[in-house]
Amino acid sequence: MYEGAVQDLIDELGRLPGVGPKSAQRIAFHILAADRDDVQRLVDALTEVKARVRFCTICGNVAEEELCRICQDPRRSAAVICVVEEAKDVVAIERTREFRGRYHVLGGAINPMDNIGPDDLSIKELLGRLADGQVQEIILAMDPNVEGEATAIYLARLLTPMGISVTRLASGLPVGGDLEYADEVTLGRAFEGRRQMA
Amino acid sequence: MYEGAVQDLIDELGRLPGVGPKSAQRIAFHILAADRDDVQRLVDALTEVKARVRFCTICGNVAEEELCRICQDPRRSAAVICVVEEAKDVVAIERTREFRGRYHVLGGAINPMDNIGPDDLSIKELLGRLADGQVQEIILAMDPNVEGEATAIYLARLLTPMGISVTRLASGLPVGGDLEYADEVTLGRAFEGRRQMA
Repeated sequence: MYEGAVQDLIDELGRLPGVGPKSAQRIAFHILAADRDDVQRLVDALTEVKARVRFCTICGNVAEEELCRICQDPRRSAAVICVVEEAKDVVAIERTREFRGRYHVLGGAINPMDNIGPDDLSIKELLGRLADGQVQEIILAMDPNVEGEATAIYLARLLTPMGISVTRLASGLPVGGDLEYADEVTLGRAFEGRRQMA
Repeated sequence: MYEGAVQDLIDELGRLPGVGPKSAQRIAFHILAADRDDVQRLVDALTEVKARVRFCTICGNVAEEELCRICQDPRRSAAVICVVEEAKDVVAIERTREFRGRYHVLGGAINPMDNIGPDDLSIKELLGRLADGQVQEIILAMDPNVEGEATAIYLARLLTPMGISVTRLASGLPVGGDLEYADEVTLGRAFEGRRQMA
């Protein structure tokens, strides 16, 4: 129904997560009416992210160099690794200021419905990080839902025989939700109360 | 908390209408993980819209040339003008296939709270279109809310003394809502049942 370029933009915006057809239309008309400079800043930000941001070769977190800021930071303990599903979970945990170790980003959770098995996650890379014997504790910080629990149980069975202390974030996280939406206090308390697994 | 380029993108996305900080973060991480080609298509769509889309010099609708598709179309009656607040309202009305005249996009509604008065709308341009005496009916299709009603009453008082038939879309539109969200049937019925004003 729209002129070509407007409809193209609505279509592209509609592909973004959480943006329905009506939101896409609303955003497109906002863009139409917006200052050219404002739109250019958005375009530049999109281009920059794709050009500059990659994933840390150690932990899989978002990085602008070969290693992410946390893996580069010598003050972060190499004895504890907190395993999360996604890079945005790292940010949520960093906000609590409870954790001073390193991270490992799995890239998802085991989910047979979506055909995601252990081989689709960066578990081999995690095991590689344990080879030098420095790591004493692994904190499993998967989302408190079915897939997250399944992934935690899988990893606990894999890691505990290796003599590493494996813990899981305490309840306190609302069950069925997304870790990234937890508020700092709840998430901080969950960190404090983490319990031994298996 | 994020690496520079990611935070920049989250900030820019957060400026879009209806995109809160959590949605901005979700979209940014989607962009991070997305195919470079997909992101390029979005960037191109944004750039194209700003480069190619402008506003029709006659009616103020979205256009890719000097005139919009409707003002260019000789089959559309020049005897009836439907006055709307925004270009997206044109699309909503076109979907009903009830209307075969032309449009006039005001660029908003009278709203003293936001300091938008008649001079901020393209009312002078509308009056200019009436000079040649071709227009016999003006249909006021403002949003069925306080600002839309105020604008309709203002225009009716201005236009009826000129001997032009001024109508307002019939009720049937849910009061307090946005015209653009009405379904085709409701909006079509509102068109059919439009009533004489003042």
